[in-house]
Amino acid sequence: MGGDYAPGMVVQGLDHALARLDSAQFLLFGDENQLAPLLRRHRRVAQVSEVRHTDAVISNDARPAAALRTGQSSSMRLSIDAVARNEAEGVVSAGNTGALMAMVKVVLKTLPGVDRPAIASVFPTERGRSVILDLGANVECTADNLVQFAVMGEVFARKVLGLERPSVGLLNVGEEQFKGNDSVRGAARVLQASLLAIDFHGFIEGTDIGAGTVDVIVTDGFTGNVALKTAEGVAKLYTRFLRESMTSSLLAKLGGLLARPALRKMRARVDPRLYDGAMFLGLNGVVFKAHGGTDAVGFASAVNVAVELVADRVNDGIKEDFACVNRDLQNDPDLMVHSNG
Amino acid sequence: MGGDYAPGMVVQGLDHALARLDSAQFLLFGDENQLAPLLRRHRRVAQVSEVRHTDAVISNDARPAAALRTGQSSSMRLSIDAVARNEAEGVVSAGNTGALMAMVKVVLKTLPGVDRPAIASVFPTERGRSVILDLGANVECTADNLVQFAVMGEVFARKVLGLERPSVGLLNVGEEQFKGNDSVRGAARVLQASLLAIDFHGFIEGTDIGAGTVDVIVTDGFTGNVALKTAEGVAKLYTRFLRESMTSSLLAKLGGLLARPALRKMRARVDPRLYDGAMFLGLNGVVFKAHGGTDAVGFASAVNVAVELVADRVNDGIKEDFACVNRDLQNDPDLMVHSNG
Repeated sequence: MGGDYAPGMVVQGLDHALARLDSAQFLLFGDENQLAPLLRRHRRVAQVSEVRHTDAVISNDARPAAALRTGQSSSMRLSIDAVARNEAEGVVSAGNTGALMAMVKVVLKTLPGVDRPAIASVFPTERGRSVILDLGANVECTADNLVQFAVMGEVFARKVLGLERPSVGLLNVGEEQFKGNDSVRGAARVLQASLLAIDFHGFIEGTDIGAGTVDVIVTDGFTGNVALKTAEGVAKLYTRFLRESMTSSLLAKLGGLLARPALRKMRARVDPRLYDGAMFLGLNGVVFKAHGGTDAVGFASAVNVAVELVADRVNDGIKEDFACVNRDLQNDPDLMVHSNG
Repeated sequence: MGGDYAPGMVVQGLDHALARLDSAQFLLFGDENQLAPLLRRHRRVAQVSEVRHTDAVISNDARPAAALRTGQSSSMRLSIDAVARNEAEGVVSAGNTGALMAMVKVVLKTLPGVDRPAIASVFPTERGRSVILDLGANVECTADNLVQFAVMGEVFARKVLGLERPSVGLLNVGEEQFKGNDSVRGAARVLQASLLAIDFHGFIEGTDIGAGTVDVIVTDGFTGNVALKTAEGVAKLYTRFLRESMTSSLLAKLGGLLARPALRKMRARVDPRLYDGAMFLGLNGVVFKAHGGTDAVGFASAVNVAVELVADRVNDGIKEDFACVNRDLQNDPDLMVHSNG
């Protein structure tokens, strides 16, 4: 029931998603009076779906703590409960991000070795695609948190982006070792230690995000959230400036007409709907958050990524890696970091 | 002597800058063997310039503390000393940012009421131009620091951007009051108090940077640095994607040819050289840092902004505003903020 266009875009999105799925089954939590007519229109979805009725919905402006306390029978909470009971392998929601994070932390809990889950997203770069985390789950992060994000992001890049040896960079205000705050410097020291078997590039700067200098960008939730939303805003600004230029004169209009297929291809390359939403990494269960304003195409892409996260056993990979990390750290106590170190 | 193409681009840049200046005089600090032939080629610059010879230069990789300790006779330090002695009203440098900041803090000192200077920059938005600060002088900021940045940024927007009542926003991970860390929440409380006579918009997000939602964006140096460099990187990515599209087929090439004047106008609109460099606000003296890789056009724009900062008496404006702020704070001690509150 979450998202500006739910539940219509959810059912329509599942229909789109099914085109790319061999087999998948869905539990739909929400108002059956709204869902029934939608499922009649999308028979393919109806065949693989089961509706679990509830009237309660978490509103977009609900504060996380309140949602957790009073939203026990909400569509959001019931869908998470289904994952906790192993009735479902993952949950996709376009609802209130803060409420979703609060609920999954309490209900699903973090994987062994993970102190705090992180929000991660994939985005287009000059070199292809990269993943960035955290995007807002943790506004303040210790060095330990950042190291854990690096491990989780690396597993994701290997398993889902299919990279053999993804490179990992720590977002900072400069590349020199002495730059930044205690958290990034502490995390860099641990990641540089070869034991972790991560291809650690070192510090990167904001310009490296678009350049695709590394496959995995690690940062605290405050900086990551601002950086990704800034990128989104600049992309929009450029699209607008381009449209204005291409309609500023008769010649430009004609040029734009001739170049239209090429420009359309360019737009497809950066179509925000293909990079829609974010994964919550580090939890016992797959959790994918679609954008609140997403449409059926965006929701379908969210569902497809969630299915991939399940199929690629990303959480098992994270668990295995943390087992290794913890063994290494026990063997070499110098690597234990604390945010003030 | 600072910057990749100094001192050639400095002298050539001054020549460009003079085209827009009624009267200005320059003190050039550096190697006279290199400067003399350059000034022979640029007579107009030679007529209004005086060379002060020094061999010593601060290298780009010098650490701030070392530059401060051993760079007493460097071109950077001597130019700052000239401002301290009132021989010059401001300094423009394309050299090592960290060293420049360390030196001006010690030599010029901050204005009364300002605890820490901030690095500020102007950038293009959907609505025109906005100013953002801090961009890296302070990786960690208290609520007090952010409030002071807001006051300084507001004065700049009024005096230099010519806005009657500039709006001020605090960069955060969401617009709701409860979002963010203690520093941004504490600063928001003070800025909301009507006493300060600032048009405070409230919290803004990364997307608001490109949208130009507010005239002045206030943030800590870590987030601001990453945000602006991210924007720069995305702009570059878009330019590249656009170029690739426009050469991807014969039709697109023809279209690009017809639209070339319009596309050139668009590029001019976001020409990074026009937004080159950054002001150091809050010091006894005007300090402008041009980009290390800048060319003569970029350096000229830096010089012109520095002259404007002097002519518009921005520092006097900051001093006056801080006098009012401090009076208000004394009358209402509840407004005193601390980073942990």
